[in-house]
Amino acid sequence: MELLEKLNWRYAAKAMNGEKVSEDKINNILEAARLAPTSSGLQPFEIIVIKNQDLKEKIKPVAWNQSVISDCSHLLVFAAWDTYTAERINYMFDLTNEIRGFKNEGWENYRQMLLNSYPQKDTEENFNHAAKQAYIAFSQAIIAAAFQGVDATPLEGFDPAAVDEILELRQKGLRSAVLLPIGYREEKEDWLVNLTKVRKPMEDLVSVIE
Amino acid sequence: MELLEKLNWRYAAKAMNGEKVSEDKINNILEAARLAPTSSGLQPFEIIVIKNQDLKEKIKPVAWNQSVISDCSHLLVFAAWDTYTAERINYMFDLTNEIRGFKNEGWENYRQMLLNSYPQKDTEENFNHAAKQAYIAFSQAIIAAAFQGVDATPLEGFDPAAVDEILELRQKGLRSAVLLPIGYREEKEDWLVNLTKVRKPMEDLVSVIE
Repeated sequence: MELLEKLNWRYAAKAMNGEKVSEDKINNILEAARLAPTSSGLQPFEIIVIKNQDLKEKIKPVAWNQSVISDCSHLLVFAAWDTYTAERINYMFDLTNEIRGFKNEGWENYRQMLLNSYPQKDTEENFNHAAKQAYIAFSQAIIAAAFQGVDATPLEGFDPAAVDEILELRQKGLRSAVLLPIGYREEKEDWLVNLTKVRKPMEDLVSVIE
Repeated sequence: MELLEKLNWRYAAKAMNGEKVSEDKINNILEAARLAPTSSGLQPFEIIVIKNQDLKEKIKPVAWNQSVISDCSHLLVFAAWDTYTAERINYMFDLTNEIRGFKNEGWENYRQMLLNSYPQKDTEENFNHAAKQAYIAFSQAIIAAAFQGVDATPLEGFDPAAVDEILELRQKGLRSAVLLPIGYREEKEDWLVNLTKVRKPMEDLVSVIE
């Protein structure tokens, strides 16, 4: 299966060469993220695409000075909603009604159920839930990069509070969840590129109940 | 791009027809999940594959009686580590050394750093972190299903504590994070199959900093 080939091809590039990725390819990566399934279809996150070099240099020190931050082409920041609000829930339900062209009682009841639960929950719990949805999109973006021969480095090693401050995310009701530098590998400076991919054997990962 | 076609084809089937998915296809889905990138490569989750019909019927009532639970072919339970322990961290570092055939000082220092941080953290924080990694694999499994013309329904609507009890997950240091029924859609009983896929427009999802 082609997908498995791509998943075997990809790795977390530890050095990139600064080469720009075409806007076409970036758009495909973002479209894959946009199409990600999310809980109740709420898509509780935003993606900030940083092309600005000064901004990348500003983020680098709060991300363990990892060179891919500055040497990538586009730095994607997956920022999850800080919580679920009535306004945010209503936006998606209204959009659904608008796109599908009708209102449905079952769907409206479901909206009420969400309005009666999410906004009353602990914000940390809501953020964690939203962040998990962001990870689904993040995963789809990584795969979309691989399908186009583009490297993407999943990156959790950063100070989220510092990134939130640099990008003024909290003011927008967002919190950084995970970073994805997109670019092209610099093989001769990358300690990881020639090492064997390590994954648990299937029997340690999966158990089957017949 | 073929990936985008597959992402547009897939949807969260709300009814399945009970038809069995071949073991080949299931293995590809599991392999995609196994290849998922995870934080520090720890793969902090397991996947329980339920083929047993009685067990599916037992889970159904704690998952809002959703018919896909009983009418799917294989029910995948993504269960994240309840916390990060020294044993679990050492397992992956030892496996890495074994597979790559050498010990590396930088890598060993990194092991120590993780040993000095994760196990001391709050278990809820660790579980949330592990669950996010499980979602990356979950996302890859969904895509692998789509590439094979197989339906997969991302499913968060269940009582995790009840599923944990049914599958005795807590005793194994696991907690259910998300479910993925795999099977084939039953179009005539599925209210969602003919509805337009709804996603936020790109401009509401993405902002670009030039």
